[in-house]
Amino acid sequence: MCAASPNSAGKAHAPILENADAAGPFLFVCEHAAAAIPKRWGDLGLSAEQRAAHIAWDPGALGVARGLAERLNGVLIHAPVSRLVYDCNRAPDMAGAMPAKSEIHDIPGNAALTPEERLARTEAVYLPWVNGLHGLIARRIALGLRPVIITVHSFTPVYFGKPRRVEFGIIHDADASLAAAIHNQARKQTRLNAEMNSPYSAADDVTHTLRLQATPYGLPNAMLEIRNDLIATPEAEAAMADLLAPVLSAALTSLSVHAKAG
Amino acid sequence: MCAASPNSAGKAHAPILENADAAGPFLFVCEHAAAAIPKRWGDLGLSAEQRAAHIAWDPGALGVARGLAERLNGVLIHAPVSRLVYDCNRAPDMAGAMPAKSEIHDIPGNAALTPEERLARTEAVYLPWVNGLHGLIARRIALGLRPVIITVHSFTPVYFGKPRRVEFGIIHDADASLAAAIHNQARKQTRLNAEMNSPYSAADDVTHTLRLQATPYGLPNAMLEIRNDLIATPEAEAAMADLLAPVLSAALTSLSVHAKAG
Repeated sequence: MCAASPNSAGKAHAPILENADAAGPFLFVCEHAAAAIPKRWGDLGLSAEQRAAHIAWDPGALGVARGLAERLNGVLIHAPVSRLVYDCNRAPDMAGAMPAKSEIHDIPGNAALTPEERLARTEAVYLPWVNGLHGLIARRIALGLRPVIITVHSFTPVYFGKPRRVEFGIIHDADASLAAAIHNQARKQTRLNAEMNSPYSAADDVTHTLRLQATPYGLPNAMLEIRNDLIATPEAEAAMADLLAPVLSAALTSLSVHAKAG
Repeated sequence: MCAASPNSAGKAHAPILENADAAGPFLFVCEHAAAAIPKRWGDLGLSAEQRAAHIAWDPGALGVARGLAERLNGVLIHAPVSRLVYDCNRAPDMAGAMPAKSEIHDIPGNAALTPEERLARTEAVYLPWVNGLHGLIARRIALGLRPVIITVHSFTPVYFGKPRRVEFGIIHDADASLAAAIHNQARKQTRLNAEMNSPYSAADDVTHTLRLQATPYGLPNAMLEIRNDLIATPEAEAAMADLLAPVLSAALTSLSVHAKAG
């Protein structure tokens, strides 16, 4: 049951769990896994091409996150609804939560949302997501299995007409230790152009999930951003998971060694 | 519905909401409102006297919180289960979440909890509480009514045999601004012996609710601690609410004025 939760009008879109009983420490989170827009929100006034583009989801991110969860025996949780309906990595009053514009695209269906419509989307998409993820984390903590939170994203190679050189971004919020360790290992183990806090940083309000779900429990955490032209096919997603799994594993080990030495 | 939430064995204990549609900005939170121990957990090996004492709940806190909510047109949410079963102001792996000892009292029923028992209590008490409170906050934010989070507690006048001089403690976590404003107004408007971060502070792990529910959304927040001998009758609770309502109101106003001036 959902406590103190008046029944919302309409269906709630629960997050999807994979590998839920995995014994490893990693918990992979994919807020922008899906481009799907449930029928009640129509097409938001967008063309089919727009609804399949990076403004609607993070192409390739779910494939990489799933590949990492398999290789590292981790849990995976992902959101089933397009971020154009509700961006699960944003608080309900952030401009990006139900964006009226994304990059160069106007989103007509989000142009004039009433408070009641914002509430309905929050109840249908955001709350099932955050409470589902929170339950997953709290249950693991109760069992003595403190998880390591890794959110997995992708970004477009060209943004507002400008090409992006960075291939692999590692973003942190209050606790930079795991992100720094991943950056260090990525530079050691791969030829990816890996950068800290690129193409975004916490100052851009992109770390809501980390702030809400990892920081309050003191869990190690980081946000990964992969340029989506590098993960455009299932084979490329698998190759990226092959490349990054040992990076994450070594980063976590180095953190533990450091903590023990300290 | 509860997303990604496998059915737990046994009933979940939902938080209790009062004044849910209140138009004011204050949201009062009472984690230790109740001494009740649901039947499935028996008496935890404690005497009736112990089960009615401050180790089981915060005597008077609910009455004051309710009085404040009425006077300031705020929302009130409180937990229905004793903190000896699960302390809703603690993460599941904190020692105080299901304490084996509280002050000078051993809690036999908590002495040797298995991970499965810790999980069962987390699912039955903690998760309904945190997700219920979180839903309340997120819904208000979605409607453009960012709440001000005030948690209301009481403390025993004698602890480990030592009398406590402080009468009214104001405790902050990451953002001290509202707590400092309340302290300032309490000294101006009342004769209470008011102290910041007393008899506890965030370093004692007593600010879990603030960290989990207020900080990630950047909401103004503070934790209030009232010495329980000052609120030992319904009349005393009402008198304390009379005293503190204008303190909170003026503190919030001073914060807004300061923010505008800054």
